[in-house]
Amino acid sequence: MNETNPLLRIDLNSPIPVYRQIVSAMRAFLVSGELGQGAILPTVRDLAMDLGVHHNTVAEAYRILADEGWLDLRRGRGAMVLDRPNPSPRKGTREDFVKRVHELVAEAQANGLSKQVLTEEMDKAIGRLSGEAR
Amino acid sequence: MNETNPLLRIDLNSPIPVYRQIVSAMRAFLVSGELGQGAILPTVRDLAMDLGVHHNTVAEAYRILADEGWLDLRRGRGAMVLDRPNPSPRKGTREDFVKRVHELVAEAQANGLSKQVLTEEMDKAIGRLSGEAR
Repeated sequence: MNETNPLLRIDLNSPIPVYRQIVSAMRAFLVSGELGQGAILPTVRDLAMDLGVHHNTVAEAYRILADEGWLDLRRGRGAMVLDRPNPSPRKGTREDFVKRVHELVAEAQANGLSKQVLTEEMDKAIGRLSGEAR
Repeated sequence: MNETNPLLRIDLNSPIPVYRQIVSAMRAFLVSGELGQGAILPTVRDLAMDLGVHHNTVAEAYRILADEGWLDLRRGRGAMVLDRPNPSPRKGTREDFVKRVHELVAEAQANGLSKQVLTEEMDKAIGRLSGEAR
């Protein structure tokens, strides 16, 4: 995790709560396998210090990831990454994804990104998908 | 707006604040032109009633969209849609988009959507982009 830590960027000015930023960023590492089964995450206290946030914020993020089945939390040591097969999608998961992609793209266009840039980056995201082992 | 109103779905159980859900959904309509220059949005009170939320929540969403340059807010009548050319992107806008697409895709995979479904829906999103007039 130490090498990937710089990628765990959080934005204290974002309207998205910090615990959710941590969850989203870590989940990306977990899904991609960059954080694989058996990996030990930094302790809540260490990560909170690294990020400059309250330790409750990190604890909440770890709790959510544990509830999702990604982490085993034991007192007194860092959280451990579990093997977590992807579940079957629930009703509405696909529709929710479509809506959120649509809104994200709209926001990016409103912020001035061109169609060309958006197309390039979405294509890259698709390419990364196909390149993964799962 | 009346015909598009059913598309303004909000999820009271989502961790994303309702005012941000309203902003995101409306921005998508504004960017796509479904809500075009001169369109009058429902009053804060009417939309709040429709959605079953506090009128301050809707007022905050309208205020944010007005700050972004989308709406002209006048007392006593509904908000009016303004002509708003897309700005030049600021530094970091593209990187922010890439990060958020990556995290959104990871979340969708964690929720069980297959690569095939994700590829299909991203392709569609790209297709919608190219189909627009702007």
